[in-house]
Amino acid sequence: MRDVAVIGIGMTKWGELWKKSLRTIFVESALLALDDAGVDHIDSMVVGCMSSGLFVGQEHLASLLSDYLGKNPVPAARVESACSSGGLALRQGFIEVASGMNDIVLVGGVEKMTDVTGCEATFALGTAADQEYEGFHGLTFPGLYAMMAVAHMHKYGTTREQMALVAVKNHDNGSKNPLAQYPFKVTVDGVLQSVLVADPLRILDCSPITDGAAAVILCPADRAKKMKKPVIRITGSGQATDTIALSSRKEMTWIESTHLAGQKALSMAGRKIGDIDLFEVHDCFTIAEIMITEALGIVEKGRGGKAVEEGLTSLKGKFPVNPSGGLKAKGHPVGATGVAQAVEVVKQLRGEAAERQIKGAKRGLTQNMGGTGGSSVVHVLEAE
Amino acid sequence: MRDVAVIGIGMTKWGELWKKSLRTIFVESALLALDDAGVDHIDSMVVGCMSSGLFVGQEHLASLLSDYLGKNPVPAARVESACSSGGLALRQGFIEVASGMNDIVLVGGVEKMTDVTGCEATFALGTAADQEYEGFHGLTFPGLYAMMAVAHMHKYGTTREQMALVAVKNHDNGSKNPLAQYPFKVTVDGVLQSVLVADPLRILDCSPITDGAAAVILCPADRAKKMKKPVIRITGSGQATDTIALSSRKEMTWIESTHLAGQKALSMAGRKIGDIDLFEVHDCFTIAEIMITEALGIVEKGRGGKAVEEGLTSLKGKFPVNPSGGLKAKGHPVGATGVAQAVEVVKQLRGEAAERQIKGAKRGLTQNMGGTGGSSVVHVLEAE
Repeated sequence: MRDVAVIGIGMTKWGELWKKSLRTIFVESALLALDDAGVDHIDSMVVGCMSSGLFVGQEHLASLLSDYLGKNPVPAARVESACSSGGLALRQGFIEVASGMNDIVLVGGVEKMTDVTGCEATFALGTAADQEYEGFHGLTFPGLYAMMAVAHMHKYGTTREQMALVAVKNHDNGSKNPLAQYPFKVTVDGVLQSVLVADPLRILDCSPITDGAAAVILCPADRAKKMKKPVIRITGSGQATDTIALSSRKEMTWIESTHLAGQKALSMAGRKIGDIDLFEVHDCFTIAEIMITEALGIVEKGRGGKAVEEGLTSLKGKFPVNPSGGLKAKGHPVGATGVAQAVEVVKQLRGEAAERQIKGAKRGLTQNMGGTGGSSVVHVLEAE
Repeated sequence: MRDVAVIGIGMTKWGELWKKSLRTIFVESALLALDDAGVDHIDSMVVGCMSSGLFVGQEHLASLLSDYLGKNPVPAARVESACSSGGLALRQGFIEVASGMNDIVLVGGVEKMTDVTGCEATFALGTAADQEYEGFHGLTFPGLYAMMAVAHMHKYGTTREQMALVAVKNHDNGSKNPLAQYPFKVTVDGVLQSVLVADPLRILDCSPITDGAAAVILCPADRAKKMKKPVIRITGSGQATDTIALSSRKEMTWIESTHLAGQKALSMAGRKIGDIDLFEVHDCFTIAEIMITEALGIVEKGRGGKAVEEGLTSLKGKFPVNPSGGLKAKGHPVGATGVAQAVEVVKQLRGEAAERQIKGAKRGLTQNMGGTGGSSVVHVLEAE
């Protein structure tokens, strides 16, 4: 397998982009990435998107998006793994380059979520859960994560305030990210007094509904050296699945797919968790970030809440988590999120993250997750 | 890149499977393939499915299907390229094995289409076209292919009878396939007198709405030699895209993406079209098969109608096309079709195709297509 590098990144401001369609927001980000890489030609495209069928009544994105980017007849694939579709796209692009099948591969992620009503969006997102055994009983994701939160609080003494602190931290970071959907700060009190969604989760514990896209350009690492940007290698890629239904798991408070994907990616990179300078993880709900820090091994089981309280995961902490603002503040266009995580890590490793720059960052990790952890994708990226 | 072989195939009878759900039909085929290969362990899974979101309200198939197959935590991916989702899954699985990323990869395709009304199914299928510029004007696939048919008739003198002969041939073949949805014969008169769908296409020119799945197991070719079945290599893989909207093409009567994907696959295999003993192609409508035989170079441009009339593409012709019965008679569960094409070619190359066996077949080609040709995937398979 060949070494793979990221040579270009692109992302536009996320939000409720009612004046733009799915194809437009994808193409805008893709063009930025091509420009950043200084390339025009690509050999293939991989696009992550969860449910363009339910959100905008459009499938066949491989054809649509290569067409609107002016790149057909290039081979193109759309991949889906619910909210980890973007991470999966990065992984498939990585495999294409590593295999020798293609040299310059555009990896994009996109989701246009605000063209439907809130109910329709909740239904569409709910298709990431087991429709016959979870959806049938009325469960949607706020409810599923609320159960995980209650179990975590009961088992480990995690507090309501600790969860709120995840939102406070990520909105602090997000306030330094001009592309974030909600670049404002929040307070613990503000979170605790916000509208209740599914007890104990409140609206400020939840990531928002977002329109957005992101793109990266990959190529073999030896070729990347001749390009204009610093070489950022993808040194590890791990993916794992788990039961789709939360009730089928051994533990409701442990995300095994993230644990396994993380171990695989770190082992491929030849690194330990302590070698990583920053993390972009899937904080779809505040409790999710707490559980992910445990599953990745940043902290011990049950210590995720305490860690955020102690500032371990803050921008100036030992293990900064979600410097971009995370899904919480940056927004969560589900299929784009995994690619945007890589965009942020590359910015940090290039030293281009401005106000939220983590000094001297050399290695970053992305963790992207589908459903309640039915699938997880982890990548390790490193500067030379 | 490593050489890749198919070591197992699985497919159950297709049709209106109202008593079975998507997960069930997928698992049945996957288990047959594992059994056929004589393996239990897999390293990863790739599943092709066009629109489980619109057809059954379920996404996140990577998690769902690895779960129900009892294979999590294996890495799993769902890929989509409209009706060529199955072919794309085969290609992604091929790349995974060729890259060295994974050794034993299960490639599946599945679609559950009959749990919704006919109108809903037509809408779901329509998402393979450009929703903003084709769907908006009321175009669905019978209408799009009807326009292609009229243009082909006008330009090349292709006749209504020649199109009917494609249906006659494929139902003849399909009558020898116990897994086909419609294993009955039809006559030219029967086709011409069947219900008009979109002039000049009649119901017996159209492939049906089908529930079905298919699966193959891939592994490195050198490892395949130690397995129980004859080694069938995938020697070529080509994919290409085109404009999604038919109106944006230079020619309505020429499927450029199939032409390019075919050239790429043949060139990778080091073969010419004349070296191929049988073809499984995407006859979603009778006119499609005629145009595909031209795009692949089996016959010259405009000669596709004449070729079927002359018997060139019949089971005993020089270039047998769709010995399985094709989409027309076997059925067309959109995401499964591309994988089922590979299942048929492997059966033929192993000499296991019983009544429809093409004697001495050593090389076969599969051609799977999305929309009106917005994407195409071609594979070449060869017996040792």
